[in-house]
Amino acid sequence: MTDDSSVESIYKRAILSIIPEGKIRDYDLIKPFTEICQFLAENPHLLSWRGRQKPDLRSVDSLKGLANKFVNGFKRSDFPREPNTVPDNMVSVVMEHAYGLSSAQCDDIKLTHQRSMCAENCVGNLLERYIDSVMTDHGWTWCCGDFVRAIDFIHKTPDGWEALQIKNRDNSENSSSSAIRNNTTIQKWFRTYSKTGKTNWDKLPETMQNKGLSEDGFEMFVADYLLNNKPS
Amino acid sequence: MTDDSSVESIYKRAILSIIPEGKIRDYDLIKPFTEICQFLAENPHLLSWRGRQKPDLRSVDSLKGLANKFVNGFKRSDFPREPNTVPDNMVSVVMEHAYGLSSAQCDDIKLTHQRSMCAENCVGNLLERYIDSVMTDHGWTWCCGDFVRAIDFIHKTPDGWEALQIKNRDNSENSSSSAIRNNTTIQKWFRTYSKTGKTNWDKLPETMQNKGLSEDGFEMFVADYLLNNKPS
Repeated sequence: MTDDSSVESIYKRAILSIIPEGKIRDYDLIKPFTEICQFLAENPHLLSWRGRQKPDLRSVDSLKGLANKFVNGFKRSDFPREPNTVPDNMVSVVMEHAYGLSSAQCDDIKLTHQRSMCAENCVGNLLERYIDSVMTDHGWTWCCGDFVRAIDFIHKTPDGWEALQIKNRDNSENSSSSAIRNNTTIQKWFRTYSKTGKTNWDKLPETMQNKGLSEDGFEMFVADYLLNNKPS
Repeated sequence: MTDDSSVESIYKRAILSIIPEGKIRDYDLIKPFTEICQFLAENPHLLSWRGRQKPDLRSVDSLKGLANKFVNGFKRSDFPREPNTVPDNMVSVVMEHAYGLSSAQCDDIKLTHQRSMCAENCVGNLLERYIDSVMTDHGWTWCCGDFVRAIDFIHKTPDGWEALQIKNRDNSENSSSSAIRNNTTIQKWFRTYSKTGKTNWDKLPETMQNKGLSEDGFEMFVADYLLNNKPS
């Protein structure tokens, strides 16, 4: 059997095995990874894993897979890519007939539509990064790496865990959410109303409010991120 | 207990109760609805129903709900609607910074992107209508109305049922498919390759081949449908 301090050291050894030695700044990843492992140890049904064998949270070797996903998710660039699919020509046929557009207009639209889709993905990804950038100093942990089921942020409180699932729009599909331990449910928040375009920052969970998150802050974060992460 | 001929009369009475009297052309809907009911009676796990109580396939009253969905699906207009949501302004922010577009260009793109999404839905819907328009005379039945799980077309053969799920692109999400009776699985087909733009008509199930389905035929069907179903 292992006591609390020794499981924590297992989590730390797993994440340290992934971070290249000497990269001091990467040590910021140790605390959130350890926090997520604690949460999963208490809520094992929320570990999302498609592989053959579910990682054993008490084994350093077994945890390396999760640590890898976590670090890769964190370091991944969310700068929008150029589209890598070929547009469906029949969509242009429909637009010509339904909206009275010319064939040349439809050709332009093909590309800008694909770029819009890439940009939409980017907004969703940067929304998580922005919230993390502000809330990491207020006890919230970003569950990046896609291995916590239906949860994007967690927050340990004296009474247990807060868990939050976020979406960019009210009409994005929600992952079906499961209860977390002690009957606590997963809170949900979306940034924008699709019918009005209004934003929803004042409806964040109470413990996230008045910490500086706002639409203006998000826009500055986005502009800044794209400036600093332009592919060379 | 009911024998085969009497269950068939139950299916007929259910669909006839939905079709307004005297509408002779609507009588074309009786045969496919009856066929779908037979298929579901043999494969009850493929009946998809979100309501409280699953329809009882042996009761006319209970079947009226399915008949209603079937007729509504068939008569629904698939002409693309004008978008009814407000675009997310942050998508434009990303496009300006990532692709170097002007604010005015992004404003145009907002609308055309929304129209593209409506047109994409339209292509998917008309693909089913087109295949039905050709294959209905060759023993295939369109499962319209969204109450057969993960199946778009069925075909009764002396050896049992063929079932087909179709998608417009190879990268569209597939519904998870279940086996149908006698170990027959659900065949899958997609119209276009997203990486190359090539079409896939020559990979249709054998019993659909050489019946006149083609990309040119689809384009003519689309143009014709949109011309004849323009909202007034």
